[in-house]
Amino acid sequence: MAIDYKKELEIAAKNMILVHEPDVLIRMIVRMLVQKIKVNHAGILLHQPERDTYVLTVSRGPAGVKIPAGFARVDPDNALIKFFRDGASKELLPQNALIYEQGQRLLRRFNGPLREILQKSLYQMEIFEAEVAVPTYYRDELIGIVFLGKKKSRKRFAPAEIDFFLALASDVAMAIRNARLFKELEAELNKKYRLFIHTTVALAAAIDAKDHYTHGHTSRVTTLSLAIAKKLGEKDKKISDPKFLEHLHIAGLLHDIGKIGIPESILNKPAPLNEEERKKMNEHPLVGTAILQPIKELEDSILGVKYHHEKYDGSGYPEGLKGEQIPLIASIISVADTFDAMVTDRPYRKGFSKAEAIEEIKRVSGKQFDAKVAAAFIELYEEGKI
Amino acid sequence: MAIDYKKELEIAAKNMILVHEPDVLIRMIVRMLVQKIKVNHAGILLHQPERDTYVLTVSRGPAGVKIPAGFARVDPDNALIKFFRDGASKELLPQNALIYEQGQRLLRRFNGPLREILQKSLYQMEIFEAEVAVPTYYRDELIGIVFLGKKKSRKRFAPAEIDFFLALASDVAMAIRNARLFKELEAELNKKYRLFIHTTVALAAAIDAKDHYTHGHTSRVTTLSLAIAKKLGEKDKKISDPKFLEHLHIAGLLHDIGKIGIPESILNKPAPLNEEERKKMNEHPLVGTAILQPIKELEDSILGVKYHHEKYDGSGYPEGLKGEQIPLIASIISVADTFDAMVTDRPYRKGFSKAEAIEEIKRVSGKQFDAKVAAAFIELYEEGKI
Repeated sequence: MAIDYKKELEIAAKNMILVHEPDVLIRMIVRMLVQKIKVNHAGILLHQPERDTYVLTVSRGPAGVKIPAGFARVDPDNALIKFFRDGASKELLPQNALIYEQGQRLLRRFNGPLREILQKSLYQMEIFEAEVAVPTYYRDELIGIVFLGKKKSRKRFAPAEIDFFLALASDVAMAIRNARLFKELEAELNKKYRLFIHTTVALAAAIDAKDHYTHGHTSRVTTLSLAIAKKLGEKDKKISDPKFLEHLHIAGLLHDIGKIGIPESILNKPAPLNEEERKKMNEHPLVGTAILQPIKELEDSILGVKYHHEKYDGSGYPEGLKGEQIPLIASIISVADTFDAMVTDRPYRKGFSKAEAIEEIKRVSGKQFDAKVAAAFIELYEEGKI
Repeated sequence: MAIDYKKELEIAAKNMILVHEPDVLIRMIVRMLVQKIKVNHAGILLHQPERDTYVLTVSRGPAGVKIPAGFARVDPDNALIKFFRDGASKELLPQNALIYEQGQRLLRRFNGPLREILQKSLYQMEIFEAEVAVPTYYRDELIGIVFLGKKKSRKRFAPAEIDFFLALASDVAMAIRNARLFKELEAELNKKYRLFIHTTVALAAAIDAKDHYTHGHTSRVTTLSLAIAKKLGEKDKKISDPKFLEHLHIAGLLHDIGKIGIPESILNKPAPLNEEERKKMNEHPLVGTAILQPIKELEDSILGVKYHHEKYDGSGYPEGLKGEQIPLIASIISVADTFDAMVTDRPYRKGFSKAEAIEEIKRVSGKQFDAKVAAAFIELYEEGKI
């Protein structure tokens, strides 16, 4: 028997597997059913294993159907769920799908113990204005129930169509399962990334705390650096690339990690450093680089750690890089780092006001700082974001 | 037209989507084709986009087919690949699948510009002993070619069968694509975890290095702790649970992280500590706990950081926990940590030999240490693994 929408729907069903966002997928499926089968509306009651509840998604179609409030989710003791979940449907129905009209006919001449559940299931279908309800299982578990409203042509559903819906419903369940697995894996990925970031934040803050004068420096520099990158990204798409922002985030957190190698007596000296102490202090970008070098995944971030004390005119350290030789990631951290150092009080001098620090940044832009990075920073200040 | 294996193969194809290991999936597919369609053998030439090459997987079936060496992969300039990839197949064939016999008939009465590629493609099919070659595309890209050997019944393939194979090949491509996406996501997950572990290792080692007398302590304690857990896991499955080992791994790396809060003058004192210094030093489990506490994902690992100086008889710190109150993760680190401290030289005393340290561990087992953990450690020593 030829079913006119069969081919189209089969192709559409195959493509479902490529949609990995469960919510998008489910809405796509009900919309697709409405359009291809040409019914007034369609819906899915989908099992959420964590809460053992069935969540309803409906596509109203142009005709529309009003599902009463309170039906956004139904419990496993809902008649229709029980009907398909506990085996009644398999016992009563020739095909394991409930057609409203057939069900009514069955009810009239039937008086067995399953009469009540059948009656309540049909009543549930009336509420949903459903003509057909098709269950789908994964192994023995009821994954969901797909239901369809009246055909626009007002024709009945034929047995061959019901067979097709049963197969289709199992494709749907598979696609949803697949999408959920993807979602779980992605959540796991985010969790691992958060674990990495949070641990790095905690350890960097602890190392930060060794330097009594710069409490919270690392986290402020990281925040400022990301703000600068987003500002630059408004004009240059490469800079708003998530990968670049990720590397910058990590580099910000780790930029002063090398201070772990500087004696506390130098870090916490309540006076300006002498030349020898200054030399020791200036080793921190290379110490940090040495600590992180073995970690291949940090390759791009290390550039920010290593070169955040380079200056645009070549007078910085450790390598005296000049102009565009300095990686952008380092130029960004440099401005954020210098600003934060300027506005922080030291025992032997009071910190600049923000306005004074901005004036100083303007003054050395193009000499100490990459001018486009300094400009972005000043813009942020003028917008009141710093 | 009824195809006897159609239903079975459709169900099998649906289940493919649940297999997320590409290699397993591909072998499963070719085996399934051989069994259900009852052909002598079947194979897939599958595109590997990274290297732009097509990799061959064959199921020999009981009859067996010898693919000549050198055909484990073929390049995109292979005739059969070009035939399906560059449009020749669509131009020449009524259905976009090459049936060997049909191809030979076509060759006899055909003299156009595509004759050579057809001839070479048929020759390639002879090498593979293929009766049918069915391409599969994702968007416009040739994902692979499925080929089938002779039917065991020696009957020909009918056009309806070819149609079915074309649809099936597209399911196959979809399943493989899906499996590859999973694989990529999993690789990304492992990468993020490695990044976390490596960064923690690097930062912990740097903090370790502040204590001049305990170089490499953190990594040795981590290795010993994991060895103890694996030994215990031989008898108690819960302990060989990957989650527990992961938490222990992290706890080992971070157990002394609180030392970042101890002044260098105490850490590096070339003599035994006085009472006040000892008190300060003994704060390190709580300092470490305070540093890591905000990180929800580290909840289980923090138990090892916080309690690795507790003693089984209740005489340890910071809380004086007793016996089974002490989390297993901490009891394991405690043995590993004490052993490493005992065998390490200090400026004011030489370290124990391994044998001496083991004697000491035996002596205080059940007092300082959880006896089952100490026993596992001693067993490792006796097996020459320490």
